[in-house]
Amino acid sequence: MIHVRNAWHVAAWSMDIEPNAPFPITIANDRIVIWRNDNGDVTALADRCVHRLAPLSLGRCEGERLRCMYHGLLFNRDGSVAEIPGQDLIPTGASVRAYPVVDRHSWIWVWLGDPALADPALIPQAVGFDDPDWILGRGQLDYAAEARLIHDNLCDFSHLSYVHPASFGANENWALTRPKVTVLDRAVRFERWVTAQSGMRGGDRDQPVDVWSFYEYHVPGILLMPSASYPAGTADKLNGKAPPPDMPKTGVTFTSQAVTALTDKTSRYFFSWGPHKDHGDEALRDMLMGIADQAFGEDKIMIEAQQRVIDQSPDVRIMPTSADVGVTQFNRLVERLSRDETL
Amino acid sequence: MIHVRNAWHVAAWSMDIEPNAPFPITIANDRIVIWRNDNGDVTALADRCVHRLAPLSLGRCEGERLRCMYHGLLFNRDGSVAEIPGQDLIPTGASVRAYPVVDRHSWIWVWLGDPALADPALIPQAVGFDDPDWILGRGQLDYAAEARLIHDNLCDFSHLSYVHPASFGANENWALTRPKVTVLDRAVRFERWVTAQSGMRGGDRDQPVDVWSFYEYHVPGILLMPSASYPAGTADKLNGKAPPPDMPKTGVTFTSQAVTALTDKTSRYFFSWGPHKDHGDEALRDMLMGIADQAFGEDKIMIEAQQRVIDQSPDVRIMPTSADVGVTQFNRLVERLSRDETL
Amino acid sequence: MIHVRNAWHVAAWSMDIEPNAPFPITIANDRIVIWRNDNGDVTALADRCVHRLAPLSLGRCEGERLRCMYHGLLFNRDGSVAEIPGQDLIPTGASVRAYPVVDRHSWIWVWLGDPALADPALIPQAVGFDDPDWILGRGQLDYAAEARLIHDNLCDFSHLSYVHPASFGANENWALTRPKVTVLDRAVRFERWVTAQSGMRGGDRDQPVDVWSFYEYHVPGILLMPSASYPAGTADKLNGKAPPPDMPKTGVTFTSQAVTALTDKTSRYFFSWGPHKDHGDEALRDMLMGIADQAFGEDKIMIEAQQRVIDQSPDVRIMPTSADVGVTQFNRLVERLSRDETL
Repeated sequence: MIHVRNAWHVAAWSMDIEPNAPFPITIANDRIVIWRNDNGDVTALADRCVHRLAPLSLGRCEGERLRCMYHGLLFNRDGSVAEIPGQDLIPTGASVRAYPVVDRHSWIWVWLGDPALADPALIPQAVGFDDPDWILGRGQLDYAAEARLIHDNLCDFSHLSYVHPASFGANENWALTRPKVTVLDRAVRFERWVTAQSGMRGGDRDQPVDVWSFYEYHVPGILLMPSASYPAGTADKLNGKAPPPDMPKTGVTFTSQAVTALTDKTSRYFFSWGPHKDHGDEALRDMLMGIADQAFGEDKIMIEAQQRVIDQSPDVRIMPTSADVGVTQFNRLVERLSRDETL
Repeated sequence: MIHVRNAWHVAAWSMDIEPNAPFPITIANDRIVIWRNDNGDVTALADRCVHRLAPLSLGRCEGERLRCMYHGLLFNRDGSVAEIPGQDLIPTGASVRAYPVVDRHSWIWVWLGDPALADPALIPQAVGFDDPDWILGRGQLDYAAEARLIHDNLCDFSHLSYVHPASFGANENWALTRPKVTVLDRAVRFERWVTAQSGMRGGDRDQPVDVWSFYEYHVPGILLMPSASYPAGTADKLNGKAPPPDMPKTGVTFTSQAVTALTDKTSRYFFSWGPHKDHGDEALRDMLMGIADQAFGEDKIMIEAQQRVIDQSPDVRIMPTSADVGVTQFNRLVERLSRDETL
Repeated sequence: MIHVRNAWHVAAWSMDIEPNAPFPITIANDRIVIWRNDNGDVTALADRCVHRLAPLSLGRCEGERLRCMYHGLLFNRDGSVAEIPGQDLIPTGASVRAYPVVDRHSWIWVWLGDPALADPALIPQAVGFDDPDWILGRGQLDYAAEARLIHDNLCDFSHLSYVHPASFGANENWALTRPKVTVLDRAVRFERWVTAQSGMRGGDRDQPVDVWSFYEYHVPGILLMPSASYPAGTADKLNGKAPPPDMPKTGVTFTSQAVTALTDKTSRYFFSWGPHKDHGDEALRDMLMGIADQAFGEDKIMIEAQQRVIDQSPDVRIMPTSADVGVTQFNRLVERLSRDETL
């Protein structure tokens, strides 16, 4: 499993990191403790005391600092040791690794690689609960599967026709047509019309619409998707071109999703979804979250089963199809960025 | 763990493979999907889509074919790809492995090795539920142990005296005497008298009988045992010789048993047992199945414990006794057949 | 994980080894069966039949002997085979390993190494339930952690201030001061005053006392601690010197504790604790056992978490502090004794 370390990884929902409650998370095999001070500042350190490797996530917040609750070593926010009980001398270099961390768009983002390159401008433009334009719900689930299989899933929506006919009401057109795929600096963009798709709005699910399916999938595994649907026939009228921004829509939603590699074989999946405030309300948001829970459970069953097959088939190769263009491009992007890190 | 691949392995009970319900089974480390069409035909394919290795056992039967429900590839019964949604060209050689499979004697038999050698005449003569002469019950249980340990158990009935005094009412004679052991082409045969054994028929269990213990243990792990008991003293009267077919019996039962290696360290054990219709009824069948459930649970406790000891004792050798002749012969047969496969 | 094999390891509480009930225990990766005869004699053999490696702990006691209940081999107390059912000849050298074993101080002690060196005089002077001077309770718990981490814990009581403020009512002085550490032949001794510690006696827990903390930690992992507390101010009056034996005490307890390595990554922890009969009663004993259960649960959470961090941090080194003198000395003692074994 290749991990892009020079990237912002989602460690948690912002609201799940409460003040003075150290939170353990493993990202790409790095054990990390995250905590928030009384004043709201967030810190991320290696979750491993420099003394005898006890986890700092079992520690106690003391003002700006975190105390290991095995033998009492006290750590500053930069990872340096502030105090060793009963010992005056703090050895030179006594410190644990500190990770760049940013609290933005309702997610805690951690930079695993070279701190000198940790530019917050590289954080993808997810939509958080602080954005008043959207009425969002959220969820998460853990996978017994490597993150790459979830990336593959999210970079090839042809699976909607087979995995999600019940939940998303997806028809065959997701599998029969192909999106336009564009490779960006740190993301892959997907865009296409999917016609005659059943709608999402409560009792109208039998009413077919044309969906302008547009999304970007950013390194290390962040999906940003502003979905819009239009009256059936719109795609044909536009001759397959992208809809102009001011065109009347039958629905507008936004979903932000983050796939975080915990270890080489386990992952955590964070997602929010909901309508634009001009196109829905809390009731629609709740309906969408019900659909999301069902759909992402369908993915989990398939992907964890796929992982088990892969684990028992070390020498078997895959056979890409024409639906895999985006998957291949994203994997190449990951490989290229990862290779650059080790130069 | 040595697996004889050029052999018919029991994958399932026939009646457990219902139409249009793909069934996953791992045999000797091969992941296999088995399914039955509407017309009753059974197919066995590698349970691993050629595209991205999703399990076909999560797929959907469509007439003669099976569709992978991840991205929709459709497979013919010979394993070849019939359809890739949204793509006209099917790459040459796009197929998964198909296994010879036969539905016989109430079991689904799968041939793991060279298909050219898959002769159905090599299927051992088990007694199925389609045989009107026998009143059978059935059961199965999974072992956290390698199949070889169960083969060893079934090729040495001296253990009956110590493992099964309560369930089978076995006396010491099973351990104190030795059977005649004959090596056949693909099986080992065991025959002997065991005297003064308590009977099996309901309230008569205290009534001692002489048991003509005759069974064959076939590659890869199929036990066929037509048990017959006679009035006490018969063995002596016959001077230890085999009883003539028309000699009056106090009881006649048949048990077919199959030990299938799932992986190198896990196994599935299938068994049926019951009286001949002239020597019992459903009530006796049910009593025998109660005994079998108890007895095979006793074996499972011992064999799984033995496996744990073996796993922690990598360098410790066994010390065969004179009771191990059949065990040794069957293991040699397995080694010889396996060696021939790789020549 | 280094194991001192030429040492007496605690295998069980004496009273848990009932007559004719074979008891399985793994010590330092050796699978051992222990049993007690009708006359009270205790035997320890390798828990692995010489025939096909079935566990003898599933066997049956027959007088002085133990019978394997798979195929019936019978073993003498010295591990030699006494009987093979149905076979006259016992092969030369047919035997399993017998371990020196002693029943003393309410514990069953097993010597893992060279039997010629198994001197019972090397058994540490634990206090058992047969000693009328003490009113003891007992407990045990299993760790998913290597024994060394528990040794480290018990050789550095600075952790009391952070792990056990609630249970033991430990104050900061445990971390701020250091004991005098003396290395003995097969143990390390710790002694110091800890002042202003809250008392242990029921409603008096708010009444501060001075504790003379004295204990020895013996190879392979036996803690012997005769705790005594004195009126606050005693330590100062004595100028930090050890209290004379006849000095009036506010409390006297004894705890014997044994850490047994089961495997390289699992351990069993046995402990007894209670007041001297002149300094308490059953009610105090029960209060102490409640404290012990809480405190040792606190240790278990920390140490098992520490083990998980260590397992995921193969290349990370520890950074000893001045509190680690006893830890380091005990580990060196273990390494030296272990090295001598292999010379």
